[in-house]
Amino acid sequence: MVTKDELLEIAERAIDAALPSEGERPSKLVEAMRYAVGTGGKRIRPLVCLASAVAVGGRAVDASAASAAIELLHNYTLVHDDLPAMDNDEMRRGKPTVWKKYGEADAILAADALQALAFLAAARSPRNAGQVVAALGEAGYGVVAGQVEDISATGDTQYIYEHKTADLFVAAAAMGALAGGGSDADVARLRTFALNLGLAFQYEDDLLDGDSPYPRAETERLVADHTAAAIAALDGLPGDTEFLRSLAQRLVGRSV
Amino acid sequence: MVTKDELLEIAERAIDAALPSEGERPSKLVEAMRYAVGTGGKRIRPLVCLASAVAVGGRAVDASAASAAIELLHNYTLVHDDLPAMDNDEMRRGKPTVWKKYGEADAILAADALQALAFLAAARSPRNAGQVVAALGEAGYGVVAGQVEDISATGDTQYIYEHKTADLFVAAAAMGALAGGGSDADVARLRTFALNLGLAFQYEDDLLDGDSPYPRAETERLVADHTAAAIAALDGLPGDTEFLRSLAQRLVGRSV
Repeated sequence: MVTKDELLEIAERAIDAALPSEGERPSKLVEAMRYAVGTGGKRIRPLVCLASAVAVGGRAVDASAASAAIELLHNYTLVHDDLPAMDNDEMRRGKPTVWKKYGEADAILAADALQALAFLAAARSPRNAGQVVAALGEAGYGVVAGQVEDISATGDTQYIYEHKTADLFVAAAAMGALAGGGSDADVARLRTFALNLGLAFQYEDDLLDGDSPYPRAETERLVADHTAAAIAALDGLPGDTEFLRSLAQRLVGRSV
Repeated sequence: MVTKDELLEIAERAIDAALPSEGERPSKLVEAMRYAVGTGGKRIRPLVCLASAVAVGGRAVDASAASAAIELLHNYTLVHDDLPAMDNDEMRRGKPTVWKKYGEADAILAADALQALAFLAAARSPRNAGQVVAALGEAGYGVVAGQVEDISATGDTQYIYEHKTADLFVAAAAMGALAGGGSDADVARLRTFALNLGLAFQYEDDLLDGDSPYPRAETERLVADHTAAAIAALDGLPGDTEFLRSLAQRLVGRSV
C-alpha cells in the first residue's frame, strides 16, 4: 500500500515546484504566496488527488502537478475568505493571515496569482491536461458560488456544503483519476467517493466546532452515512484504494 | 479580409456562452459577473485572439473559447484593481464599479469566479487546449506580478508595462494562434507582434492621459517604434494578417 508519507513528499515537492522560487521578482508577491501556501499542512486535497491516481491503477507521481494545483486553489480561497471585507480574520493556523501580514492589496493579489498558478500547474498534467484543467475550473467556480451563497442572508446549507467544501474534494479526486489515466467509469466512482468524503468532512467539522445547522445526533448520522457512501464508491476500482479507504475512516473523529 | 464586425460577433457570443445564464444560482454572483464583463466594449484582446487564429491560416471560430477566456481574465483584473484596497475607483466606463454596485465581498468573489471561468473556457479550446491554458496561466500570473510592481514604491516602468499590459496581449495572440493550429514559429511571430502592440498601446495610453513617465517626444517615438515592430512581426505568417495590421495602425491616435 502507498503510504501517507510517500504521498505527502510528492505533494510538498509539487507545491514547491508550482511556485516561483524565493527571491524571484516581484519578491514581495512570491513571499506572500509562499506564506499563504505554507508548509507542513495536512494537504488533504493533494493526498486525495495523488491517491486517486493510484486507485485507478496509475502512479501517484502522474498526478503531482494536479495535486499542487488543487492545493494552490484551496489556499487562494482561504486568503480571500480572511479579508476584512469577507470574514475579517486576523489569524489562521496560529499565524497572522496574509492580509494582516502583507496588507490587503498584496493579499488580494497574491491570492489572484495563486489561482493563476493553480491552473498553470494543472495544464502541466502529463495526461488529459484539458480535462484536468476543466475539473479544476468547475471546482474553482463552484467554491466561489458556495461562498457567495454562504455570505448571503438566505444561504442554503446543502448548496453551501456541496460547493464551498465538497467541490474541491471532487476536483481533487477527478484530477488525480484523470492524470492517472482512469476510465470514465472510474473517474465517476472517485467523484462519488470525494463528494461524500467532502460532506462527511464538513459535518465532522460542524461537530468539532459545535455549530452544526442540524441536531447533534442527526449530524453524527450524516457523518457516518457519507463516510459509508464514500467507502462504498471505491468498490470496483482497479488500483490500490487502501489509502483512500483509511482516510475516510480516520476522518471520523478527525484523526487524520 | 475578415471584418471587425464578424470578429466582434464571435467574441460577444463566446463571452456570453462562457458565463452562466442570467437567473442561474447564485443569481447575485451571475449578475455581478455579467455586469463586470459588460457588453459593447472594445474587446481588443478577443479581437487580437480571433485574428491570430486567422493569421496562422485557421478559422476565427476555432479561437472563440480562447477569445472569451482572455476577456474574462482581463475583466477580473479590472474588478480587483478598482477595489478600495487597491485604486479605490468608484466609476469605470461611465458606470459604478462592481464593488460600488455590489459591495466589496461580492466584487472580490465575482472577479475570482471570472478567473476560474476564464480557465474553464480556455480548456474548451478545440485544439491544443493544454497549451492554450498554459498561455493564459502565464499571463494570469504576469498581469498580477505587474500590478504588484505597479503599487510598490520602487516600481520599474518597463517591468510594469511588459507584464501589467503586454502579457494579456501576448496571451491573446498565442492562444488564438494555438487554437488556430499555428506552427511554433508562427505562434512566436504573433507573440512578438502582441508584445509590441501591447507596449505601443500602453505608451499611447500615457500620451492620451498626459502622464507618461518619459518626455512626450520620447513616448511618441516609442509608440511609433513598437507599432512598426508589431507590423514587421506579421511577415511570413501563412494566413490573412490584414486585420491585425490595421489594428496596429489604428491604435496610434486610438481610432480603434
